[in-house]
Amino acid sequence: MYRPAGRCVAIVDATVDHLHGNALREYFTAHGIPLVTMVCRALEADKTLDTVCRMTAFLGSDGCDVARGEPVLVVGGGVLTDTAGLACALLNRRTPYVMVGTSIVSAVDAGPSPRTCVNGTLMKNALGAYHPPVLTLVDRALFSTLAPEHLRHGVAEIVKMAAVDDEALFTLLQRHGRALLDTRFATTGDDPDLAAVADEVLFRSLHAYMRHEGTNMFETRQGRPHAYGHTWSAKFEPVAGLLHGHAVAVEMALTATLATLVGWLDEDGRDALVAVCRDLGLAVHHPVIEDLALMKVAQDTMRRKRGGSALWAVVPRGGLGKCDYLDDVEDALLAEAVDRHRARCDRFPDGGSGLGMYLRDARRT
Amino acid sequence: MYRPAGRCVAIVDATVDHLHGNALREYFTAHGIPLVTMVCRALEADKTLDTVCRMTAFLGSDGCDVARGEPVLVVGGGVLTDTAGLACALLNRRTPYVMVGTSIVSAVDAGPSPRTCVNGTLMKNALGAYHPPVLTLVDRALFSTLAPEHLRHGVAEIVKMAAVDDEALFTLLQRHGRALLDTRFATTGDDPDLAAVADEVLFRSLHAYMRHEGTNMFETRQGRPHAYGHTWSAKFEPVAGLLHGHAVAVEMALTATLATLVGWLDEDGRDALVAVCRDLGLAVHHPVIEDLALMKVAQDTMRRKRGGSALWAVVPRGGLGKCDYLDDVEDALLAEAVDRHRARCDRFPDGGSGLGMYLRDARRT
Repeated sequence: MYRPAGRCVAIVDATVDHLHGNALREYFTAHGIPLVTMVCRALEADKTLDTVCRMTAFLGSDGCDVARGEPVLVVGGGVLTDTAGLACALLNRRTPYVMVGTSIVSAVDAGPSPRTCVNGTLMKNALGAYHPPVLTLVDRALFSTLAPEHLRHGVAEIVKMAAVDDEALFTLLQRHGRALLDTRFATTGDDPDLAAVADEVLFRSLHAYMRHEGTNMFETRQGRPHAYGHTWSAKFEPVAGLLHGHAVAVEMALTATLATLVGWLDEDGRDALVAVCRDLGLAVHHPVIEDLALMKVAQDTMRRKRGGSALWAVVPRGGLGKCDYLDDVEDALLAEAVDRHRARCDRFPDGGSGLGMYLRDARRT
Repeated sequence: MYRPAGRCVAIVDATVDHLHGNALREYFTAHGIPLVTMVCRALEADKTLDTVCRMTAFLGSDGCDVARGEPVLVVGGGVLTDTAGLACALLNRRTPYVMVGTSIVSAVDAGPSPRTCVNGTLMKNALGAYHPPVLTLVDRALFSTLAPEHLRHGVAEIVKMAAVDDEALFTLLQRHGRALLDTRFATTGDDPDLAAVADEVLFRSLHAYMRHEGTNMFETRQGRPHAYGHTWSAKFEPVAGLLHGHAVAVEMALTATLATLVGWLDEDGRDALVAVCRDLGLAVHHPVIEDLALMKVAQDTMRRKRGGSALWAVVPRGGLGKCDYLDDVEDALLAEAVDRHRARCDRFPDGGSGLGMYLRDARRT
């Protein structure tokens, strides 16, 4: 006799529900599993404790009261990952969840991460809990519906892991990054070789990330390669109104220039990183980083967040695919790096903003 | 040269600030340590994520941005403990805190506990995080200002540990419990022997609690002696509008009667427990437990909260100071226990409500 496998309680991103909701419901219907779903808008503005409260009210309501140990299915992008992960962390002080990341960021970075969070009043991601999913599923078929601009900014987290932890991944991005973007990770067209490359890029990115994140689940160590591009950007990203990936790329490019000043990276390495970012349509410069007072506040805030004794700024060292940490970046050094970086980016017709790629996409769609 | 020890960021219960705020400020002034304080009302109605948000906004504000690893001082009773503990848990995903429990409950139970929480929409303490204080300080001098009714209901958590884990503690309560209440834990009067008893009672209670709580920090095991009195009460406490300790005592007394029905405790044991509760002015019966439909909902909810496969109801077994767990309590058994318990309590002039003691206190003050 067929025995249904219980029920599934899910929190699903509103956009994902619009695009893939029917497929999701059909899957559970076909397996005879009742599905109870909360559909939730998940924009950056929704990354608040209010959203978390609405989710816990749903999970804890009489119609849908999850038992200790009953996993919640979370399907969505980075914001949903962070907020629903925190809702699960708080409910009964630990409700397990299964993560299906539908964006690049939630598939390879925010999704598998133990760090759940919402934004604080003055600091992005200031409030949260360490609460990893019990299972992360990555299916690049879901990337077929991603908007080009979301593909681009998500790829920044893959560039990040390549630049500081996996030289082979960096080479793959140099060779195939643009093709992966153009085919939405080989979900359009029919190129089995590119599909294999897409799988390898996603695997290598996840592996590099979890090698560091999964062995440092409570951030007891601040030496975290995956914090590359995440020191000053936490402050200047919202000020400039940048999408997360562009802010990360701007900082990656800037700190690669910084690396050339302290002798940790040669100009070729810096140029290779900048070239990959530009090839993928990522910003590599934004005037916001020329506001040195803001950069100083960003640095002081992050130093406090990381324990107060050192900045732990991730910087490539000894070539791409490797990194080290700067305990401090003095005002004069940061000013010089910003100055040089702007001069370097002035050569680009778009000043390093990535706008050229954006306009190309806009013309095509 | 004298070197100040940095600064102290504190969250202080409004009532405690009123009674002891000057002493606190004088202490830090005398040691040359700047003190930054948030004074916070902490009634049961304040046990919400809103309160937690206000606390994290304070801790994360520019004037008072705690660094990773900088401990926050938390001074207050059970509600402040739970909410400020959760605020610290969320801020930077783990901000350490030092706990000074000013009530009996926060000194020996909620304070040292790793379980921080706020109330959910339908369930007490439904949302929270496991985040123990780095240090718990207990000073019974603070009990000198406790209202008699707060002393009484707090003592229920000490009776709890005595009844299921420490027979010697139970004997101390039989002999000296009333005197400890009358002298606010030997803070009034001048009886060095009673002061020593007070210290031993607090030590034994804390020790019994932490022996189980501190070795089960994430509640991986549901066999938790300190959950005695906390199975049905989570639901009937707010329905009846009881103070927490009275709700716990009602359930302890009821389940002691239940224990006599299943042959786990003799009538003398049950009567001894009921006698100690009544001696300390605690309720041992309330009509709310006669609402069997409510009790059933309470039981089902708690079973789900504890994983769904068993109820894990703590019941004294083989004499006071020891306990075991009931996987299930069938409707007929619960009905019989409630019936017998009511009959037993009908003998008391106040029906087991503890109102007699309350009126005595009211006359004295």
